[in-house]
Amino acid sequence: MSSSDLMQNLNIRAIQLLQEDAIKIEKLIEVQMDNLTTRKCPLYEEVLDTQMYGLSREVDFAVRAGLIQEQAGKELLIKLERNLAKLYEALNKKE
Amino acid sequence: MSSSDLMQNLNIRAIQLLQEDAIKIEKLIEVQMDNLTTRKCPLYEEVLDTQMYGLSREVDFAVRAGLIQEQAGKELLIKLERNLAKLYEALNKKE
Repeated sequence: MSSSDLMQNLNIRAIQLLQEDAIKIEKLIEVQMDNLTTRKCPLYEEVLDTQMYGLSREVDFAVRAGLIQEQAGKELLIKLERNLAKLYEALNKKE
Repeated sequence: MSSSDLMQNLNIRAIQLLQEDAIKIEKLIEVQMDNLTTRKCPLYEEVLDTQMYGLSREVDFAVRAGLIQEQAGKELLIKLERNLAKLYEALNKKE
C-alpha cells in the first residue's frame, strides 16, 4: 500500500470511529427525548456531559495526531451540540 | 516516505501526544502532593478523575485507530493510576 493510501485509510477509519461514538451519544439524546413525558432521570445530564467531554478529547487527539482535519472534528461536535441544545430546550419547556 | 515509515511516524507522534497529556496529569498529582500540608482543594479529586477519563478515551481511540498497541496504552494508564493511588493514600493518612 502506498503511504497516501495508508493515510487515507487511517483518516477514514478515524472518522468512522468518531462517528460511532457520536451515534452512541445521539442515541442517549433520543432516549431522553422519547422519555420527556415520563420521569426525568436525574443523571442523564451528567452522563451526556461526560460522554460529550470524552468525544471532544478523542476528536482533539485525532486532529493533533494528524488523522482528521480540524474542520471535520468541529463539524461532528457542533452537530451533536445542536441536538443536545434541542433536548435541553424541550426539557426546559416541560418544566 | 514509505507506508511503513509513515506508520512509524504516526505511532511515535501518537505516543508523544498521549505522554504529553499524561505529564499534565502527573503535574496535577505532584502539585497536590506538595500541598498535602496545606488546605486540600475540594475539587482536585474531580479534576483528576475527569482528566484521567479524558486520557483513557484518547488512549482507547488511539488503539482502535491502529496508532498504538493496546499494551502501550495500558502501560501508560497503569503508571498514572499507580501515582494517583499514592496520592490518595497520602491524603488518607493525613485525615
